[in-house]
Amino acid sequence: MEKVDGGVTFPQGFKAAGVHSGVKYRSLDLGMVYSEVPARAFVGYTTNKVKAAPVQVMMSENSEFLSAIVINSGNANALTGRRGIEDAKTMKSVAASELNVDPKEIGVMSTGLIGRFMDMHKVRYGISKAARELEAGREADASLAEAMMTTDTIKKESAVRVRLSDGTIVSIAALSKGSGMIAPHMKVVFGTTLCVVTTDAVLTEKFRKTWGEILDDTMNMATVDGDQSTNDTCALLANGKAGGKCADEDPEFVDALKKVMTDIARMLAIDGEGATKLIEVQVLGAETKEDARSAVMGILNSPLVKSAIFGADPNYGRIMMALGNSGCKFNIEDVRLTIKGGDMEVPILDSGAPVFQEERSVEVVRMAMDNKEVTIIVDLAAGNECATGWGCDLTYDYVRINAEYAT
Amino acid sequence: MEKVDGGVTFPQGFKAAGVHSGVKYRSLDLGMVYSEVPARAFVGYTTNKVKAAPVQVMMSENSEFLSAIVINSGNANALTGRRGIEDAKTMKSVAASELNVDPKEIGVMSTGLIGRFMDMHKVRYGISKAARELEAGREADASLAEAMMTTDTIKKESAVRVRLSDGTIVSIAALSKGSGMIAPHMKVVFGTTLCVVTTDAVLTEKFRKTWGEILDDTMNMATVDGDQSTNDTCALLANGKAGGKCADEDPEFVDALKKVMTDIARMLAIDGEGATKLIEVQVLGAETKEDARSAVMGILNSPLVKSAIFGADPNYGRIMMALGNSGCKFNIEDVRLTIKGGDMEVPILDSGAPVFQEERSVEVVRMAMDNKEVTIIVDLAAGNECATGWGCDLTYDYVRINAEYAT
Repeated sequence: MEKVDGGVTFPQGFKAAGVHSGVKYRSLDLGMVYSEVPARAFVGYTTNKVKAAPVQVMMSENSEFLSAIVINSGNANALTGRRGIEDAKTMKSVAASELNVDPKEIGVMSTGLIGRFMDMHKVRYGISKAARELEAGREADASLAEAMMTTDTIKKESAVRVRLSDGTIVSIAALSKGSGMIAPHMKVVFGTTLCVVTTDAVLTEKFRKTWGEILDDTMNMATVDGDQSTNDTCALLANGKAGGKCADEDPEFVDALKKVMTDIARMLAIDGEGATKLIEVQVLGAETKEDARSAVMGILNSPLVKSAIFGADPNYGRIMMALGNSGCKFNIEDVRLTIKGGDMEVPILDSGAPVFQEERSVEVVRMAMDNKEVTIIVDLAAGNECATGWGCDLTYDYVRINAEYAT
Repeated sequence: MEKVDGGVTFPQGFKAAGVHSGVKYRSLDLGMVYSEVPARAFVGYTTNKVKAAPVQVMMSENSEFLSAIVINSGNANALTGRRGIEDAKTMKSVAASELNVDPKEIGVMSTGLIGRFMDMHKVRYGISKAARELEAGREADASLAEAMMTTDTIKKESAVRVRLSDGTIVSIAALSKGSGMIAPHMKVVFGTTLCVVTTDAVLTEKFRKTWGEILDDTMNMATVDGDQSTNDTCALLANGKAGGKCADEDPEFVDALKKVMTDIARMLAIDGEGATKLIEVQVLGAETKEDARSAVMGILNSPLVKSAIFGADPNYGRIMMALGNSGCKFNIEDVRLTIKGGDMEVPILDSGAPVFQEERSVEVVRMAMDNKEVTIIVDLAAGNECATGWGCDLTYDYVRINAEYAT
């Protein structure tokens, strides 16, 4: 597996575009990704009961093959009733007619403000423009990335090239947006995490289960605020352009895809609204996988843990408080807690009490927490299951951004 | 029912004290509430799996009658292993010997930093001092209130006098502390919400179920950050000093107790760490009581909803996002959402879409949200169950307080 400098158009047969439709005042706000041949699509949608119009439309109408996905930012087309559904359908049909394909082969994703109707005049114009500007290459990748962004501050893309067991070289690339309202829990038949993954590998319907598992271990383990969006959607498009044998069960391919998706999950957390630090939580020795995941998410979503890490406040008791509320099984006497940051790795607990009490030792915890990346390792000693997740600190800027979002 | 200006020593036969033991640098940090005759005790404890030493000790050792409760702030005696358990037991035995009662009749509550051992030299001194200074009256009430506080900024007490059906006049008073790590979910056999409720009414063991229901509708519906503490404890002490018949099923008594507990729950939310606004959420028309409660807590605990209300940002879509993640059942087309603040009552949703789209109308939502108390009413139109809960906004000060707590 080789990491490459590339975006969604790096795999063969994919093109992209990003344009300014006018929904936003200045920046690019509408994009499109296109495959020269219909690509087998594996799509995960939000499990929030309030689903945005584009999610409802894709879930009910889409074919298992997609030629293109239209993506707009600035308006989530969520909480827009029947008119929203019509608007999402119109976005598909306009794109289909521009690209001369069946509307069923067009996916649609929206992100932005909830509860406002789309300005379809601008959106129609944007779709036509994007369809005419489709290109492959770094410039097209960058335009699409910008068109998808809301409060994002960094471009979230990752790409690799990998040699399969039959010798075929295939590429995988992913592009995602997402900064707030991030706690995707997408299910395959899947967050406003929008994510497009492209590959020129050959995949069949049988890959759906593996894709679900990869999403559960990557995107679904990233959280910024525990608030799952109404719009989360993650689409893997496999157009088979690289040829060779089917990659469904090729361990090299699965590993490479997992690597790309893990990169994206970490970037979502790093770029969480207002975030200054990445928090990785590893839970080991859980009785069940579900326990391990609940413990990871319980710790990552605790506002008290998040704000302590922002301030490098060595208040490790809050980690145990969050663990205790997570619903996972453990015996407090057996739990081992370790905090890592920079070159430091500090063991905290032994037999249900801190291993140290001296203020000087507590200072070591502060030093470990005073790093851009803080890792919390919890060994529950209750079984053999484990999980890893990614979140970020809770900062003044998170509050500022979200107290002023609609305005 | 008559509201009175009183504290925990207002009901007959109760005394209190608050002293400076030295655990904190300056303020009062250790208190005691005492009943002249052993009082029937109904105690709810945190359901966090990581339970502080005083909680573990009370749950395993206490009698159904209590003569006194010792309460310290500055150190939670949580995550302190076997040594913590011994320290909690010592607190009981020291108080018992000072008051000349059985240690089983002494309750113990702690709040403060997690994961540090108690300085028992100071605590012993404080308990002896408090036992000697027990008094009835407003000064004693105020000392105990101060000794319990951590990041609290207001005194949380409420008292009423009520005439029972047999003519007996009884009093009920409650005192609570709690500002952060507030999302009690205490169960009766039952958060760091510490709460002491005193009454001179006569109650029997049969009242335990009613007490549990009242806690579920009051304290357990208050949330600041969704983080349930390791120490939450709420004790009702009934010493029967008013005489008269048993008040277990007296509707006047139950209403009065519910009123006092609702007052306390609202105060916990108003005084949430960094809070500038009280948020009340009412969910009506739920299929089940559990659905109604989940919906209320889902909305109150969403950082996006909380920060929008801080900024009076009319981003009502976030309320629906939080509702959709709460797990409660509804049909989006049927849901009615109303936001109230000050004199304004603004209907938001109709048939799954906002009733207005004009920027001028959205301004009305902002005006409603720009009040010290904001009420969100959600009618699910799915059944007949309802629930009400109280929370607060997420502010810069919440982040500041919790990024610097241990230091």
